[in-house]
Formats: sequence, C-alpha cells, structure tokens
Amino acid sequence: MTEQPPMRWTVHGERTIYDSAWVRLCLVDVEIPGRERFEHHVVRTPYSAAGTVVHDPDRGVLLLWRHRFLTDTWGWEVPAGMVEAGESPADAAVRETIEETGWRPGPLRPLTTYHPINGLCDEAFHLFLADGAEHLGDPTDPTEAARVEWLPVPALRQAVADGQLRDGLSLTAVCYALAFASLD
Amino acid sequence: MTEQPPMRWTVHGERTIYDSAWVRLCLVDVEIPGRERFEHHVVRTPYSAAGTVVHDPDRGVLLLWRHRFLTDTWGWEVPAGMVEAGESPADAAVRETIEETGWRPGPLRPLTTYHPINGLCDEAFHLFLADGAEHLGDPTDPTEAARVEWLPVPALRQAVADGQLRDGLSLTAVCYALAFASLD
Repeated sequence: MTEQPPMRWTVHGERTIYDSAWVRLCLVDVEIPGRERFEHHVVRTPYSAAGTVVHDPDRGVLLLWRHRFLTDTWGWEVPAGMVEAGESPADAAVRETIEETGWRPGPLRPLTTYHPINGLCDEAFHLFLADGAEHLGDPTDPTEAARVEWLPVPALRQAVADGQLRDGLSLTAVCYALAFASLD
Repeated sequence: MTEQPPMRWTVHGERTIYDSAWVRLCLVDVEIPGRERFEHHVVRTPYSAAGTVVHDPDRGVLLLWRHRFLTDTWGWEVPAGMVEAGESPADAAVRETIEETGWRPGPLRPLTTYHPINGLCDEAFHLFLADGAEHLGDPTDPTEAARVEWLPVPALRQAVADGQLRDGLSLTAVCYALAFASLD
C-alpha cells in the first residue's frame, strides 16, 4: 500500500460559457494544492437518466436493438431515458420501459447510481433491476428502436463479449446485474 | 418480440457552438423519419480514455481512493486516463497505471470499448484487465489519489454494493471483470 496525504482539488470559481435547457458548458477554476491552478471544462446537465435491466427467468432480459447517430453504431440497449421534472428515478425507469418496449416492468429494485464521465460531466445514471414484465402492447415511443427483444442470459453474455453493448448505461447495468444479481 | 421497421435518425448537418483542445460543443440537425426534426446538443472530445483492472490472485485489485470535485464525492477508482496523441489505448492504460499507482501492470488483455454517454458525448472508454503488477516505487503523479491500495475481491464486491464505486469507468470495468473474468 502506498500512503499519500489526502488529495482534494480546490475549486476557486466557475463561469458559464454556454447554457441551454439541455446542457451547460462551464469553465471551473481549480487548483491542485501545491502544484498548479487551471481552468477545467465541465459539462452540466439539469437532468439525470434511469435505465432498467428487466429480467424474466423464462424469457431472459428485455432489450432494444437501436442505432446511435452520434457514434454511428448499432447495439443492444436496456430501456432508459431522462428523469423528468418532479419524477423519481424509479418512476422514470418504469415509464421509459413502457414507452420504449410496450412491457410494464415488474417490481423494481435499485442496483446503483453512478457518474458515467465524472471528470467531465455531472450527469448521474440510476440503474434498476425489474423482476419480470407484463405485455401491454406496442411501444408508445417507437422512435427509439428497430427491434424489441428478450435475449436469454447466455445470448446476452455472448452479445456483451461480442461488443454488441457499447452504450455505457446498458453495458454497466447488464454487467452489474450479471455480477451481483445472479441472473442465470 | 415486437417487430418495428428499421429506425435510424437522419443527420442533416452540424454546427459548432464552442471549440477547444479539450471539448467541442455542437448542435446536430437531426430528423426522426416521419416524426420530427430538431437540433440535438452533442459534446465531442478529441481524445478517448483507457483504464485497467489490475488483478493479482494474492493481493486483489489495485485501486485509488480519490475525490472528484465535479460531483464532490470520494470513491474507489481503477487507474485510468486520457489516451495521448500517437499512443495506443493499451499503452495509455500501462502509463496511467504506473503514473497513478507506482505499479507496472502485468500482461494486459482488452475487456471492451464503449461510449459512456452515447446520447450526448462521443467519448470512448477502453477497458483492460492486467494480470498482476510489479512495484516500481511511489506514483509519479501523486495528484490523483489520497490512497493507493489493493482491495481483496470480496472487499471490492462489498465496496461496489456499498456505492463506493460511483466513477463510471471504474464501475463498468470492475463489474465487467467480475462478470466475465472470474476474478475470485
């Protein structure tokens, strides 16, 4: 073990470069004690996001096959989206699952909350695991995915190993559930 | 299974709102076919990042206990950082481990590459698993962490369950390794 003195950067101030309802770009005036002082770019989002690993012992895990224009990639994703004003992360997780898949998730339990890029962006992701789901009908938001499908857990493990889950929220949620929730 | 027509947003153009060596903020003119057309905020980074789960069967996993000013949180993180110009992700993973921990990682194998916030930011994270490590001395970059420590795998699993890994790259890397690399 290597012991070092407690290390915490000092924040002297912050100025906004650009602001909008979706994203704020700031420069934070920070100092590494005894070393250097500089301006650090920070992206602030006024919202967080919530996503759900919906698991049914017979069907597997409920996934969307979708394209992302930003990275120009296709991949499997769990249902997920923005937590709206006045909504709890769990309520958002249920709403997004219904809208995007047409399935109402069973009882939810929180897996974890984390910061996907904590050196650059303050956005938080809330992950949930749902026990089963009830089919309501077609997705009410069909703009998200090309396909909605239950993937058996062995096929899901193979999809992760094949690099077919490149979306961070989905990859983290699925790996967390595989490591901690004994999906098999 | 719910079948839908292939769904891919159309990109009509992109304009830059702010540019720097660290981050570029853009508005992308996108259209959801048959639905709506709007401008979508996108954060582009000219770099990617690489991080490593360094695992030793006797010691456990090599971690940093550090503070993040952006989220004002303390947590365990794996050694990680930016891939520099002309550097491969694997070379960056080795360099960052040495700089931040003072340990040279053993043979690396790639776990996966993913996009931590693929609806907002194009940054990619490259994850590696290293087999053991050799102690070289003190970290050459001691500004990153308050403590460098080997955590036995059961303690690491407990730390994840206790919410002590809120840094996305670290959480994803550790959960991926726990689910796919049989660390125990």
